[in-house]
Amino acid sequence: MDDLPLRDELRGKSPYGAPHPDVPVQLNVNESPYPLPEPLVDRIAQRVREAARGLNRYPDRDAVELRTALAAYLTRTGHHPLTAANVWAANGSNEVLQQLLQAFGGPGRTAIGFEPSYSMHSLIARGTSTGWISGPRHEDFTIDLDAAVDAIAAHRPHVVFVTTPNNPTGSAVDAETVVALYEAAQRARPSLFVVDEAYTEFSHRPSLLPLLEGRPNLVVSRTMSKAFGAAGLRLGYLAADPAVVDAVQLVRLPYHLSAVTQATALAALEHTDTLLGYVEQLKTERDRLVEELRALGFEVTDSDANFVQFGLFEDPQAAWQHILDRGVIVRNNGVPGRLRVTAGTPAENDAFLDAVRDLKKEQGA
Amino acid sequence: MDDLPLRDELRGKSPYGAPHPDVPVQLNVNESPYPLPEPLVDRIAQRVREAARGLNRYPDRDAVELRTALAAYLTRTGHHPLTAANVWAANGSNEVLQQLLQAFGGPGRTAIGFEPSYSMHSLIARGTSTGWISGPRHEDFTIDLDAAVDAIAAHRPHVVFVTTPNNPTGSAVDAETVVALYEAAQRARPSLFVVDEAYTEFSHRPSLLPLLEGRPNLVVSRTMSKAFGAAGLRLGYLAADPAVVDAVQLVRLPYHLSAVTQATALAALEHTDTLLGYVEQLKTERDRLVEELRALGFEVTDSDANFVQFGLFEDPQAAWQHILDRGVIVRNNGVPGRLRVTAGTPAENDAFLDAVRDLKKEQGA
Repeated sequence: MDDLPLRDELRGKSPYGAPHPDVPVQLNVNESPYPLPEPLVDRIAQRVREAARGLNRYPDRDAVELRTALAAYLTRTGHHPLTAANVWAANGSNEVLQQLLQAFGGPGRTAIGFEPSYSMHSLIARGTSTGWISGPRHEDFTIDLDAAVDAIAAHRPHVVFVTTPNNPTGSAVDAETVVALYEAAQRARPSLFVVDEAYTEFSHRPSLLPLLEGRPNLVVSRTMSKAFGAAGLRLGYLAADPAVVDAVQLVRLPYHLSAVTQATALAALEHTDTLLGYVEQLKTERDRLVEELRALGFEVTDSDANFVQFGLFEDPQAAWQHILDRGVIVRNNGVPGRLRVTAGTPAENDAFLDAVRDLKKEQGA
Repeated sequence: MDDLPLRDELRGKSPYGAPHPDVPVQLNVNESPYPLPEPLVDRIAQRVREAARGLNRYPDRDAVELRTALAAYLTRTGHHPLTAANVWAANGSNEVLQQLLQAFGGPGRTAIGFEPSYSMHSLIARGTSTGWISGPRHEDFTIDLDAAVDAIAAHRPHVVFVTTPNNPTGSAVDAETVVALYEAAQRARPSLFVVDEAYTEFSHRPSLLPLLEGRPNLVVSRTMSKAFGAAGLRLGYLAADPAVVDAVQLVRLPYHLSAVTQATALAALEHTDTLLGYVEQLKTERDRLVEELRALGFEVTDSDANFVQFGLFEDPQAAWQHILDRGVIVRNNGVPGRLRVTAGTPAENDAFLDAVRDLKKEQGA
């Protein structure tokens, strides 16, 4: 690869992505442990069969039926009325965020995130040649509002990311903090403000969708990978003022969302209530993980997501390997002293807790 | 939208995309007129049903089964042995090209195409902040080798696009010309050379895949939208040296290709022979369109694709409207004096020929 006429900043880099060894208990990438229910599998097959008959034609470039269904879901669960004009969808929230940075970031512009946070924010910034600013957090991983406002005032970023609940740490940000950050950002310069709510359905706090009212530069991004238990579908979406949706259409690749993806997402949205039932089970299991890990003496970050950050480890990679050796894969996100575990089924979580109990014993020995 | 903190170069722009009015005969976007055969529809439903059961998990990030199947197809039809390591796939060839420009183009770099050609090349260049150079053609729309070599020497582009068969004009480029352009490009500077073969299965000439041998900076891009009659699937792919595939993985969004897209593409590849049978029918119809349009007195560009460029019109937009008023939509790509018609079913092509016969009569009157 060194002989290729590659961009200089890519030389020596490795592709992003979690390792996927074949182990029995996979609690590493915040997937749902529950396969889609069989009636939904039937409905997907039926909807895709219908779509396949017209597959010789390009898909609906504007995905109007899907955006209408997503808007109805957000209106019902987010306590804020939205229509298809407020919603945009793409192949995973990564593509949504890439489109936002193509339109509002890019060369000569900067974006800020408060780290540790979702690592794709900085990677997509790099991929779109947007300068990246790593903003601060408190030691307990909550947002340090004063320091964050100072960083925004100092750097005057064109795009601000706030992830709530935050990944990989787990806790949610309150509405007042988000509003204060939005106002600080707009004081610094007119800028796009992205609230990444990938995990919001697992949160104790309500969605921040109502903040869209009167804030034309605010965007809330979402995904069907987590609450809809459909990581394999790759369907991300956003809600914002219709002008933001118009702007994204200037940079989206035409027909970016295949007819089979649209059909599958529509089928899943028909089964929202069943899928949100799984979310309730996972919240219970998430709370159990927090409680049992604390009882074992681990330091655990409060979690509003479908995962839990825990520590402290002198050598997180060695602890990760120890757990893996017992057939359970968790994630080392590079947060000093910590690992992250996804809430799985009760049996999977038991297997994980056995593995860390074991680890604790050895460490104590 | 003017009030948003949008990038300056996007201000006042409109989203790319052909108009899609609801008319009976759609010969405007080079789709196949043939719905997928029912056994393939069954197989897609079956494969997607299997994939849907595991949709709670992320898809195969490296799409190995699909890339292996695509490599087998290229090996069989392209007379050049390839493996999965040579092949990469994404959501439409547009995303493949975007990834190539992210890795090999981008800010401070330039790309050249010989225009008129596929308009997404320059648009994706803009979207990735790659400078665009519009290279020349002969008046008959074939590549002017001397002028093209001069343009390459003068501009020293980092990425070169050659589209064969060319869209929207229709004719293919011979291997000697492509080799001469590749060598001129490498003399100017080490650069990526992209041969866009979206329409190659409709060509009188063989694929240029064998040129990959010994040319590490050459890439051949392909799509399942045209020969596989699956525009709704959004599956594009490339063949190149494995190092190019490694390089693209540095910029691809992780898990960019959904499990349902991978499953559907694999099903379609199982039915390759049936789908290539439709290609043969369309080639016959394409040749009939060329012949009949010439008999009617139109100037027609030689075609190796599933469409035909014809003229001359003093006012192509008025001619386009005249044809549309008769229930047939063709495409005005902005090539002076010309329109482009996709080869449809025999009945659709008859309807088109009736409409232009009519037009000719009015023009003669």
